[in-house]
Amino acid sequence: MDDLLAQLRSSLPADALITDPDVMASYAHDMASFCAAGTPAVVVLPRTVEQVQHVMRTATALRVPVVPQGARTGLSGAANATDGCIVLSLTKMDRILEIGQVDRIAVVEPGVVNATLSRAVAEVGLYYPPDPSSWETCTIGGNIGTASGGLCCVKYGVTAEYVLGLEVVLADGRLLTTGRRTAKGVAGYDLTRLFVGSEGSLGIVVKAVLALRPLPPRQLVLAAEFPSAAAACDAVCRIMERGHTPSLLELMDGTTVRAVNAMTRMGLPESTEALLLAGFDTPDPAADLAAVGELCVAAGATEVVPAADAAESELLLQARRQSLIALEKVKSATMIDDVCVPRSRLGDMLDGTAAIARKHDLTIGVCAHAGDGNTHPVVCFDQADPDESRRARASFDEIMALGLELGGTITGEHGVGVLKKEWLSRELGPVGLELQRGIKQTFDPLGLLNPGKLF
Amino acid sequence: MDDLLAQLRSSLPADALITDPDVMASYAHDMASFCAAGTPAVVVLPRTVEQVQHVMRTATALRVPVVPQGARTGLSGAANATDGCIVLSLTKMDRILEIGQVDRIAVVEPGVVNATLSRAVAEVGLYYPPDPSSWETCTIGGNIGTASGGLCCVKYGVTAEYVLGLEVVLADGRLLTTGRRTAKGVAGYDLTRLFVGSEGSLGIVVKAVLALRPLPPRQLVLAAEFPSAAAACDAVCRIMERGHTPSLLELMDGTTVRAVNAMTRMGLPESTEALLLAGFDTPDPAADLAAVGELCVAAGATEVVPAADAAESELLLQARRQSLIALEKVKSATMIDDVCVPRSRLGDMLDGTAAIARKHDLTIGVCAHAGDGNTHPVVCFDQADPDESRRARASFDEIMALGLELGGTITGEHGVGVLKKEWLSRELGPVGLELQRGIKQTFDPLGLLNPGKLF
Ligand SMILES: Cc1cc2nc3c(=O)[nH]c(=O)nc-3n(C[C@H](O)[C@H](O)[C@H](O)COP(=O)(O)OP(=O)(O)OC[C@H]3O[C@@H](n4cnc5c(N)ncnc54)[C@H](O)[C@@H]3O)c2cc1C
Ligand SMILES: Cc1cc2nc3c(=O)[nH]c(=O)nc-3n(C[C@H](O)[C@H](O)[C@H](O)COP(=O)(O)OP(=O)(O)OC[C@H]3O[C@@H](n4cnc5c(N)ncnc54)[C@H](O)[C@@H]3O)c2cc1C
Repeated sequence: MDDLLAQLRSSLPADALITDPDVMASYAHDMASFCAAGTPAVVVLPRTVEQVQHVMRTATALRVPVVPQGARTGLSGAANATDGCIVLSLTKMDRILEIGQVDRIAVVEPGVVNATLSRAVAEVGLYYPPDPSSWETCTIGGNIGTASGGLCCVKYGVTAEYVLGLEVVLADGRLLTTGRRTAKGVAGYDLTRLFVGSEGSLGIVVKAVLALRPLPPRQLVLAAEFPSAAAACDAVCRIMERGHTPSLLELMDGTTVRAVNAMTRMGLPESTEALLLAGFDTPDPAADLAAVGELCVAAGATEVVPAADAAESELLLQARRQSLIALEKVKSATMIDDVCVPRSRLGDMLDGTAAIARKHDLTIGVCAHAGDGNTHPVVCFDQADPDESRRARASFDEIMALGLELGGTITGEHGVGVLKKEWLSRELGPVGLELQRGIKQTFDPLGLLNPGKLF
Repeated sequence: MDDLLAQLRSSLPADALITDPDVMASYAHDMASFCAAGTPAVVVLPRTVEQVQHVMRTATALRVPVVPQGARTGLSGAANATDGCIVLSLTKMDRILEIGQVDRIAVVEPGVVNATLSRAVAEVGLYYPPDPSSWETCTIGGNIGTASGGLCCVKYGVTAEYVLGLEVVLADGRLLTTGRRTAKGVAGYDLTRLFVGSEGSLGIVVKAVLALRPLPPRQLVLAAEFPSAAAACDAVCRIMERGHTPSLLELMDGTTVRAVNAMTRMGLPESTEALLLAGFDTPDPAADLAAVGELCVAAGATEVVPAADAAESELLLQARRQSLIALEKVKSATMIDDVCVPRSRLGDMLDGTAAIARKHDLTIGVCAHAGDGNTHPVVCFDQADPDESRRARASFDEIMALGLELGGTITGEHGVGVLKKEWLSRELGPVGLELQRGIKQTFDPLGLLNPGKLF
């Protein structure tokens, strides 16, 4: 331990190390509830690639586990410390190194905050689509670690589709360059993609080349009220079946709507059973919204309200982005699920989730990236009530089982972390799991990188 | 050898095996020139997953190498036989199993021809974008093996972006399922992507879940003539810098234009130094073409001719698609390169290629997926002339060196195969290469799958 600190200090500035227990405690876990977290030996905040290499060489020499961290907004415990580990926070490596207009790329350090990058590229007419609702705080490194999604994915895809190349410090401190700066390239296996979503278990991302798009027109959004979640899901299916390409297609169930109202006093329709938000950033969004509005009515919408302008549209998005936080205030505790099913099974997923809530006598609010079939059932319960807590845990698992049964996945975007480790093996099966472990072994033979996560 | 045939026959119908040497010879290689090919022991054409598993179990038991093949249109020798191998042709597994309109997916066997799938999904209003120029013959399995591109990539991306999930028979005959049917998912490492572009070296793809899009409006194309390749590249940069999203942005240099004319009598402008084709499938393509036409003129275009209608647009595309075949007829032999550079360096790439041609006194025609910076310099030479052949090989290598120097990759879409093996290690460097080999070892510890390719 003294050895560890001494070796780290030998090539790191004093202010790059934190050893104060109280401060370290704040780095112990991400925003997931009910995920075990240990006590780090030290928190390191490097500013350069060489410093990261020094940390990893030291960790390898002394066989100390390393937990990489971005902003710790993760929802699966993937950034949680383990006892005696080095927490390696990349938040100080936060420079945007380059924005190329002709090549439509950005080169960034991992600690750049998502919204900071989005605004910087927008200034020169470019667009970095991935927009998790935590975008004002989460980092590009964390987004890459979790392959994160957001509201825009139904049209623009997830983080994975925007990562062209990486620089990665390996477990032993060597520097690996993957991928490219070019629009296309097929030289060898796609190591870049392997790192995206690997939850810090294969290497430390220290630089990323990201693909950008031209900035689309501001989107216009409508809100449609439905008498049931099933009817809203039916509308989603009709919209997609008709060949529409919304830039946003989000669902909030009645519980979520009321929770957001309670927190924000936004005045969303209190009595609705499901609110569907559809957005278009096409040249003529009003025409698209009109067509989609008709499909909503055909599916049973009781009210369809197009936003008057971009500002009103942004307000509706704010409501949706607040959903998880608002649901957290319904009871003393929550467990946030993240099951993604084929879009055509979305109605079955929501009906099944409601049945699980009834069976266990629980409040489960659901918001969803509906256009992608990605639901976030949020189980709300009273932590002081052991029986309710037990039922909450049971319902959380039943929701994942239901997702798998419907041909879906246990995690659409939040990742596995420690929260869903047992479930990962159920989804992958023994052959898949064996190969995943083989890959881990290839990149991190000593098992030092983020141990205890994923599998 | 007798053992091999006996074991294969034990679970395969007689017509699934070819042992006639003349017929086998036609399965020995793909369409790349100057790539070594061996003599297979047997060619197997399975029709079911179980039959593929039987082949792989037999191969593993007897330690016989296996070379998977699609339509053998590859341009890097990646499907070439090795001596004594089992050639495993997937062309008879050619069923489209499912097309889902709400989920926007297709589930297919690997032998489905690209154009067959494209037409089938178009009938229900959907679109499978990846469109290599060989699309009328190449297979989805081969497209996945090479991560192939095409004309549409500048707007719609490459094959990799359309593969959601796979079923793969591993070297030892076990069946692996990767990925998902859902729009999103982050459960574990992205094994699906690892298979895309792995050139048959990690497993046999026996089923694929592909993402589809709504069918866009028919595209409208313009042709612009330039006095130099550099001016055409300048136009490409301006178009992309201005935020346009063409569905097609292709370049043919003067040599290519004249070669296509010679072969097809299409009557393209004989004297031009570079022809740029730009297409839009937007709601108002004529307006987009007008804007792009102006940018072409500003960059020095001497003539800008918008196609009158979709039929005329399709003709221009045909011309572009014939480019490689037409250039093959210029001299007795060709070597087709596939260097991709950052779009902003496209002009430097074309100027540099012309300088290499002058230096070696060779004809090098260039066609390019210009919007992606992906050039195909085609070195034309007389095989009977040993000195010209030597210079051709030297220029081929110099073109790759130039590509790397400009921040590019040795292969944008055709892959490594046997053609660019030595160059792969130059591009990846020792650390990258070591990890790639580690992955290969994890999936194929006996080294039986497509040995001698990639590295
Ligand atoms: C209110 C709220 C809303 C959210 N909405 C969404 C949403 O819409 N969509 C969505 O996908 N997620 C959402 N999330 C989850 C979370 O914000 C994302 O997973 C985000 O990508 C995490 O980024 P971070 O910087 O906080 O990373 P962290 O939580 O710190 O880390 C995430 C993972 O990445 C690894 N990691 C971080 N940096 C690096 C690096 N440089 N190298 C290697 N590994 C690294 C960590 O080890 C960990 O495994 C939400 C979270 C909250 C709290
Ligand atoms: C005229 C012409 C134009 C072309 N234009 C383009 C273009 O625009 N863009 C482009 O990208 N390419 C182009 N190509 C190259 C070629 O067509 C593509 O690489 C195509 O994807 C190969 O498909 P195939 O079915 O012929 O595969 P093959 O050549 O038979 O095989 C290609 C690779 O995939 C592997 N493979 C095949 N099937 C499987 C399977 N089921 N499981 C595992 N591995 C498998 C093989 O082992 C091999 O490594 C062109 C070729 C020609 C001749």
